[in-house]
Amino acid sequence: MARPLTLDPDRLFPADEHSRSIARDLYREIADLPIVSPHGHTDPAWFATDANWTNATELLLAPDHYLYRMLYSQGVSLDALRVPHKGGVPATDPRAAWALFAANYHLFRGTPSRLWLDHAFAEVFGMAVRLEADTADLYYDTIAEKLASDAFRPRALFDRFRIDFLATTEGAQDDLAHHAAIRRSGWGGRVVTTYRPDGVIDVEHEQFAGALAAFGELTGEDVHGWQGYLAAHRNRRAFFRSMGATATDHGHPTAATANLSPAECEALFGRIVGGSWTPADAELFRAQMLTEMAKMSRDDGMVMQIHPGSVRNHNAGLFASHGRDKGADIPGRTDYVHALRPMLDVVGTETDLAIILFTLDESTYARELAPLAGHYPCLKLGPSWWFHDSPEGMRRFREMTTETAGFYNTVGFNDDTRAFLSIPARHDVARRVDCAFLARLVAEGRLEDWEAAELATDLTSTLVRRAYRVDQSAPAAQAT
Amino acid sequence: MARPLTLDPDRLFPADEHSRSIARDLYREIADLPIVSPHGHTDPAWFATDANWTNATELLLAPDHYLYRMLYSQGVSLDALRVPHKGGVPATDPRAAWALFAANYHLFRGTPSRLWLDHAFAEVFGMAVRLEADTADLYYDTIAEKLASDAFRPRALFDRFRIDFLATTEGAQDDLAHHAAIRRSGWGGRVVTTYRPDGVIDVEHEQFAGALAAFGELTGEDVHGWQGYLAAHRNRRAFFRSMGATATDHGHPTAATANLSPAECEALFGRIVGGSWTPADAELFRAQMLTEMAKMSRDDGMVMQIHPGSVRNHNAGLFASHGRDKGADIPGRTDYVHALRPMLDVVGTETDLAIILFTLDESTYARELAPLAGHYPCLKLGPSWWFHDSPEGMRRFREMTTETAGFYNTVGFNDDTRAFLSIPARHDVARRVDCAFLARLVAEGRLEDWEAAELATDLTSTLVRRAYRVDQSAPAAQAT
Amino acid sequence: MARPLTLDPDRLFPADEHSRSIARDLYREIADLPIVSPHGHTDPAWFATDANWTNATELLLAPDHYLYRMLYSQGVSLDALRVPHKGGVPATDPRAAWALFAANYHLFRGTPSRLWLDHAFAEVFGMAVRLEADTADLYYDTIAEKLASDAFRPRALFDRFRIDFLATTEGAQDDLAHHAAIRRSGWGGRVVTTYRPDGVIDVEHEQFAGALAAFGELTGEDVHGWQGYLAAHRNRRAFFRSMGATATDHGHPTAATANLSPAECEALFGRIVGGSWTPADAELFRAQMLTEMAKMSRDDGMVMQIHPGSVRNHNAGLFASHGRDKGADIPGRTDYVHALRPMLDVVGTETDLAIILFTLDESTYARELAPLAGHYPCLKLGPSWWFHDSPEGMRRFREMTTETAGFYNTVGFNDDTRAFLSIPARHDVARRVDCAFLARLVAEGRLEDWEAAELATDLTSTLVRRAYRVDQSAPAAQAT
Repeated sequence: MARPLTLDPDRLFPADEHSRSIARDLYREIADLPIVSPHGHTDPAWFATDANWTNATELLLAPDHYLYRMLYSQGVSLDALRVPHKGGVPATDPRAAWALFAANYHLFRGTPSRLWLDHAFAEVFGMAVRLEADTADLYYDTIAEKLASDAFRPRALFDRFRIDFLATTEGAQDDLAHHAAIRRSGWGGRVVTTYRPDGVIDVEHEQFAGALAAFGELTGEDVHGWQGYLAAHRNRRAFFRSMGATATDHGHPTAATANLSPAECEALFGRIVGGSWTPADAELFRAQMLTEMAKMSRDDGMVMQIHPGSVRNHNAGLFASHGRDKGADIPGRTDYVHALRPMLDVVGTETDLAIILFTLDESTYARELAPLAGHYPCLKLGPSWWFHDSPEGMRRFREMTTETAGFYNTVGFNDDTRAFLSIPARHDVARRVDCAFLARLVAEGRLEDWEAAELATDLTSTLVRRAYRVDQSAPAAQAT
Repeated sequence: MARPLTLDPDRLFPADEHSRSIARDLYREIADLPIVSPHGHTDPAWFATDANWTNATELLLAPDHYLYRMLYSQGVSLDALRVPHKGGVPATDPRAAWALFAANYHLFRGTPSRLWLDHAFAEVFGMAVRLEADTADLYYDTIAEKLASDAFRPRALFDRFRIDFLATTEGAQDDLAHHAAIRRSGWGGRVVTTYRPDGVIDVEHEQFAGALAAFGELTGEDVHGWQGYLAAHRNRRAFFRSMGATATDHGHPTAATANLSPAECEALFGRIVGGSWTPADAELFRAQMLTEMAKMSRDDGMVMQIHPGSVRNHNAGLFASHGRDKGADIPGRTDYVHALRPMLDVVGTETDLAIILFTLDESTYARELAPLAGHYPCLKLGPSWWFHDSPEGMRRFREMTTETAGFYNTVGFNDDTRAFLSIPARHDVARRVDCAFLARLVAEGRLEDWEAAELATDLTSTLVRRAYRVDQSAPAAQAT
Repeated sequence: MARPLTLDPDRLFPADEHSRSIARDLYREIADLPIVSPHGHTDPAWFATDANWTNATELLLAPDHYLYRMLYSQGVSLDALRVPHKGGVPATDPRAAWALFAANYHLFRGTPSRLWLDHAFAEVFGMAVRLEADTADLYYDTIAEKLASDAFRPRALFDRFRIDFLATTEGAQDDLAHHAAIRRSGWGGRVVTTYRPDGVIDVEHEQFAGALAAFGELTGEDVHGWQGYLAAHRNRRAFFRSMGATATDHGHPTAATANLSPAECEALFGRIVGGSWTPADAELFRAQMLTEMAKMSRDDGMVMQIHPGSVRNHNAGLFASHGRDKGADIPGRTDYVHALRPMLDVVGTETDLAIILFTLDESTYARELAPLAGHYPCLKLGPSWWFHDSPEGMRRFREMTTETAGFYNTVGFNDDTRAFLSIPARHDVARRVDCAFLARLVAEGRLEDWEAAELATDLTSTLVRRAYRVDQSAPAAQAT
């Protein structure tokens, strides 16, 4: 007696009928707009090879830290979920891993993962019953069968999802072979890269030396000298732009920026590459590099994204056994008002530069980020991020930023995901929550209905295209 | 023309009729579940002696810092309320104190104290008119008369309130005589203790030396040596367990933990007992002791509660005249992500250990606590605490923790009170606010109605029993 | 085809019909109460001279940093808006500036500025169509014509707005000539001053030396000696009181207070006036002066307001070209619990002293400010301030402070504005949001309807009169 799986057509709209009908009307007009995904972590190899995915565990469970961190928090072992450890992939039967997940699916009640998964189950795979212990095999078999079909290959789903633009994220030392293959293939899907140079900036990363060496090799620059190192960045940024990139991305522990003199930069870089750096040097170098990246963005027009504030690899035991990116990154308190000032002293008044700020510390929305974005021409606010990419998180974002920064200093939605099948669900959640917020403003007499309709389109489409300069992305022809 | 006192049967449910009817249905099924109170500060002497209480001022007003702090903030003197000072109990007539309180009862509009008191007035004492200046005597006389009856003695009320399990909190140097008396008495009420060793850990407490001496005497250990001191803790923990304790509790100024080497521990403890400690040593010792307590919990199965972040005795003038716990403790900013790391390096991946985290700094809910509890197997989130134990506070707790930690990394409700007569009211508020939150999720299509019904029971009963290991509490027979 | 401008009579009330009708009933009773404006920044010269204002750009746009910061954030130049720079007023045609503003008016969707302006356009100027590019000239001409009439001179509008009491803010070194003129004029409007001595306390202000010299000259005291400096403050406070002032105001970067010995004060002041101070000295001096001001308030009965936490002049480029107060002040994290303690050690238990606390850091509402104000007799909470003076900001203020501090430790509304024409709109927003909050409490059974009605009047009128000692303000006769 499996329970039916249906998606409430009014989900995420306000409960009172007056606001709900306004939200419904707003949503109807934007529900089917194409997806623009300007920041995320899907694998370009999928679109380069267009190979079939295999099964639910490999595609949906084992790579998704949102899912296995919750199970891990309740005492489930990562091995039992086939999450790779440092020694490789555990021998667990993928079907058994899926059954374990299904039996624990109630843990996700009230979480966005539950919304995303149910949407994918119902809309992508056409499941009509809920995932639970009793339906685990039905799910596993149905999904495996569909994934083996042509209609479920990456490019087919890309088209079916009506994705107009999809940006992946690659390191400065990446050769972008998959992106080159996509662009050579003649396939019409717009999949572009994003320049994320953290690996050659963060000297505290365990693979910094290797990344720097690859960086030098790819560019032919003397990356052990300050000027050569900067030139290498310029070189790679140009190459990334030729692969369609319109943006850079910077994931730093803090939002610290610096504005050192050229001599100080030379000396600091000497310590960094010479191996005599302290943790304070590492932080100062990251800080100075944000300012350098901002200056390069001023010159080359790339949009700059700053994602600060995650304390990475918090679980020492898990880091030892499983390495990075295993759901053990925890946000910390983040300052912007003091941290960004050195960079803003250099580029703050630029009107052609776009720096998009993200946060994991919601206490900064109304206090620091909205006042900053509501003043500086170069600053915009990225959408609610990571742990806050959720109905409540999005609502708080709008409630705490709109009154000071307005809507037009925000940049639409980012799905920021490596879970390709969740992309339609995530954009749908964002569109619904925005419509719910706009409906409340209309119901409370704070906005006219025609303004809300314009805003619904702006938040879904106009702002993201403009902020990320989507329509300035290099076309495939240029790159071949 | 006194105004009627009635409790709205739909109180604390959402205002819109659709959500309200869902909440009403959810609440109906859990309203009468027995009370499990795993953490609080009632006096075990009440249940040991079962003596009658005297009057409203002695029972409800003079010991309740929620009440007299509000009156004090408006210029009312504590003497006029019969709040004890260092010299003893003021000579104020208790009836006059009560009248003063009644005349100022409007100050509590919008506060949880008002909800708790009205509930107790109506449900426990059967009052039919509101408390105000004109009804002060009626209240005073009615309450005094009832308190003198057998039906209002502590054990009778315990049964009437349908309390299934009630934990008090005692210091490591407490002899637990009242608990022993309760267990010897043959009374069936489950009243257990909780191990709270702050008095022998916080060297900055003015009574540390005396507490440490008592600790040594009770245990027969050399508590002035590091190993003997740890052995004494193990000894007392075992004794507390024999008195039904399933948990420990730690009220520290910060959440700092440490992971010192044995030699560093020895040296630090030497300074602590030798009197040569600095404030930094005092903090480091508290930090190290949290890790020691976590290791002991790993060994003996006691659930560990951490209540950090209160700046105690903030009002120097009041501390001089009245001493501790007089409503002058003020929360401060609290860090968890860095503070807990040393302890988690030691015990973070344990799946049998339970550490329940509380906070007075709501900015940590979504930023630090939910991400930590949604990852570490040993961490759970305690309910909204103290100033946040209120309808708005509970709502914020659910809104800011559920999406990342889920419901199943939380532990149900704590009344955390010394106000025995408010216990039913407090649990009722929690149940109603949880039903209101669940109703919103159902109304917004984020949860099925049958899931919400399961969750309502889980949040009221299942989770608290499991988290606090209620059903593993030592029965009275063992202790006699 | 201009769109009609109408104000929803139910604006800012909850959307569900049940709560909405309660809010509507509450609001009806207080909508027309006179305005008490105990803190703001209107120009006393307006009321002294009663001269006509000129046009929309000069009156509404160029002086309002809420407006031009938003336009600036979207790349509009301040020159194009006729915002004065260091070299004077730009040559831009005011009509063209207004047209640029009108064409960008959609940027304010969802902001309080939009609510305030539409209210002023509709209610003060009688506009029937919305401001947009097409109606810019109609607006400009209509407003200019009205402003030229007698009915739109400052005193006429003061009466029309039903302002009962209006406090401006002047520096310690101000001669209060305009206030003297107002009081000599025989006009009945109660316009009083507020003592804001920041200019002679903040040694880091670029005009400190000049301000201190004027301070000495006005008072005849030796303001370069500590005792003379304090005497000068007492002297000016008395003079301000004679000009109707009932309050002082202190805008400091932090809430730091200090409690130095007399000898330490002398030494610190020596460094301050001797020019040998460090930034730490500057901060310590501001901190000590808050305590000195509190002691003087204890003696002379002036209400003390503390507005901390703004990082001033954040945009270095803009500060160089345009100077202070150009929309580039950004809030920072603010601590109160530790910062206020030295001052509270001195005056914390006073029951006749009133210190009103404000914040730009909403994370302190529930954590620090409500617990402090719900305990200390001398502390009260000012309303939501600056970036938080908005519907969402006011709602958060009530939701996060009421349960701990109650309503009666708050002080009603402050418009805190230099935009005179927005005063009715701002008070109307506050009254509506308070009624909406009260309506929710009634709908949720947390408050009786008659209590909510009493509270609506208290929040609008009673509390502000009492907190600011409005009815103890020196009448004009005394000052002549």
